[in-house]
Amino acid sequence: MTNATDFRAWAAAGQSHIEATLQRLLPAPEIAPQRLHQAMRYAVLGGGKRVRPLLAFAAGELSHADAERVALAGAAVEIIHAYSLVHDDLPCMDDDVLRRGKPTCHVEYDEATALLVGDALQSLAFQVMTDHKLCDDAVVQLEMTKLLAIASGSRGMAGGQAIDLASVGKELTVTELEFMHIHKTGAIIRAAALLGLKCGAPLSAAEHAHLDSFAKLIGLAFQVVDDVLDADATTETLGKTAGKDAQQGKPTYVSAMGLARAKAFAEELRVEAMTALEDFGDRALRLRQLADFIVLRKS
Amino acid sequence: MTNATDFRAWAAAGQSHIEATLQRLLPAPEIAPQRLHQAMRYAVLGGGKRVRPLLAFAAGELSHADAERVALAGAAVEIIHAYSLVHDDLPCMDDDVLRRGKPTCHVEYDEATALLVGDALQSLAFQVMTDHKLCDDAVVQLEMTKLLAIASGSRGMAGGQAIDLASVGKELTVTELEFMHIHKTGAIIRAAALLGLKCGAPLSAAEHAHLDSFAKLIGLAFQVVDDVLDADATTETLGKTAGKDAQQGKPTYVSAMGLARAKAFAEELRVEAMTALEDFGDRALRLRQLADFIVLRKS
Repeated sequence: MTNATDFRAWAAAGQSHIEATLQRLLPAPEIAPQRLHQAMRYAVLGGGKRVRPLLAFAAGELSHADAERVALAGAAVEIIHAYSLVHDDLPCMDDDVLRRGKPTCHVEYDEATALLVGDALQSLAFQVMTDHKLCDDAVVQLEMTKLLAIASGSRGMAGGQAIDLASVGKELTVTELEFMHIHKTGAIIRAAALLGLKCGAPLSAAEHAHLDSFAKLIGLAFQVVDDVLDADATTETLGKTAGKDAQQGKPTYVSAMGLARAKAFAEELRVEAMTALEDFGDRALRLRQLADFIVLRKS
Repeated sequence: MTNATDFRAWAAAGQSHIEATLQRLLPAPEIAPQRLHQAMRYAVLGGGKRVRPLLAFAAGELSHADAERVALAGAAVEIIHAYSLVHDDLPCMDDDVLRRGKPTCHVEYDEATALLVGDALQSLAFQVMTDHKLCDDAVVQLEMTKLLAIASGSRGMAGGQAIDLASVGKELTVTELEFMHIHKTGAIIRAAALLGLKCGAPLSAAEHAHLDSFAKLIGLAFQVVDDVLDADATTETLGKTAGKDAQQGKPTYVSAMGLARAKAFAEELRVEAMTALEDFGDRALRLRQLADFIVLRKS
C-alpha cells in the first residue's frame, strides 16, 4: 500500500467515525422542536472534509488517546465549526447561498431558524464536552472545555470574524492578515489538535509546545490555501461560491502578496510545521500526512 | 427594618455584586477586537433586574454556598440571558429597537456585530463556567456546565425560541403555551437556581427536588407576568416596547386566558412555589421574597 492510499483509508475511517458520532450526538429529527432539529442535522451531517476531527485523531495518536474519547472531542469542535458556517453564511454576514454543494441553512430553512441552529449547535458542543468522560481527570476536562470556549469566543473565532468584517474594502498588511486568521480559523484548528492530544496521557511541556506550534502553523496554512483556492478554483470544485473574496473586497493572502507568492507561503508553512514534528518520530505519521493533505488539497 | 426594605437592600447588594463580576469577566473595551468587546459590554452591563443571578444567590443560601462562586455561576447565566436578548431583538427574529430603555444592540452597532456579540457571549458563559473553581468537586462542576449547556440549547432556551417562532399567528392551548415557556424562559431560570445551589454542599434528593419544583414554578410565573405586563404596562415603564405580543400575533397567556385570568394564574403559581419551599424554613427567606418580587413586579 502506498503512503497516499494508506492515508486515504485512515482518513475515510476517521470521517466515518466522526459522522457516526455526530449522527448520535445531534437530537433526532422527530424530537420537538422538529424543524430546529432537522435544520441542525442539515447543517452538520453529510458534508465537509472533517479536517478538524481528523487533526484531533492524529494528535491523539501522540498521547495514545482512546479513539472514542477523541471522536467526542473532535465532534464538539466540528459542531462549533458547523455553527460558525451557518452564521457566516447569513445575509448580514457573508450572505452566501451555497455551502458544501447544498443551499445554505437560511436558504433551505429561513433566517431565524439558521440563527437558532447556530446558537443551539454552540450549546450542543459544550454539552458534548461535559456530558461524556473525555479524559481520566475531571480537572483536565474542565480545562479542555475552557480551551474550546476561549477558541470559540471574542478572542478566538468570533473575534476573528469581527476583524474580518471590519477589514472589508481595506488593504491589510500580511501581519494584519495573520492576526485575523490566527483568530478566525487558527484558534479552532489549534483547539482540535490540543483537545485530541489531551484525551490521552499528558506529554512533556516541550512536546506539548511542539504540537502547539504545529497546530498554529497548519491552521495558518489552511487559511492561506483557502484564499488561494477561492482565487484559483471553480465553484463546482469547491462546493461553495468561488471568487467571493475579490468580489466582496475582502483582503486575502492572494490580494496581499499575489497568487504565486501565496502558494509559496503555504508551502513554507507546511515545511515549518513538519519541522515542529521532528522529535515525535513515527507517532506523528498521521499529523504529517494531514499537513500534506491540508496544503495540497484542491477544494 | 421592614421585610420589603430588607429585601430591597439584599437585592441591591446582589445586583452590585453581579454588576462588578460581569464588569470583570467581560473583555476590556480597549482589547482587540475593540468594537466587538465594546458591543458585548453594551449588551450586558448597566441594565436589567438581574433576576437570574439573584435567584442563584437565594438558592445558594440553601446550600451555604460561597457567594463569590455563586456570583460567577450567576454571571454565566446572566451572560447567556443577555446573548439571547441580543439575538431575539435582531430583525429576523422579533425585530425590536428598544431594550432596557436603550437602543438594541443591532441598532446601536449593526446586525453583523450583534450576531457576533451573541455568539461570543455564549462562548464567554462557558468560559466562565470552566475558568474558575465553582464548587469543590470538578466532576460536579462539569455537571453544572452541562446543565447550563442543556438549558441553553435546542431542548431548552433556543428550542423554546424555535417553538415561539413557529407559533406566531396561531392560537395555542394553555398546555402548548406552557411547553413553549418551560423551554424559552423556564430552562434558564431553573438553571440559575440549580447552579446557585450546586456551588454549595449537596442537599438531600428530596430537598433538591423541592428547589427544582420551586424553580420551575417561578420560571413559569415569570413568563405569565411578562405576558401580563406586555398587555398591561407602558413602554416607558417596561424599558422595552409594550403591546408587541398582540401586535405581532404572538400567543400569550393573556391571549389564551384573558388578562384577569392570567393575573390570577400568576398568583396561583406563586402560592404553589411557596409551598415547594415549606421544608426549608428560614433558609428559604430570600427565595420567598424573590418569588414575591417576580410575581408582583410592575416592569
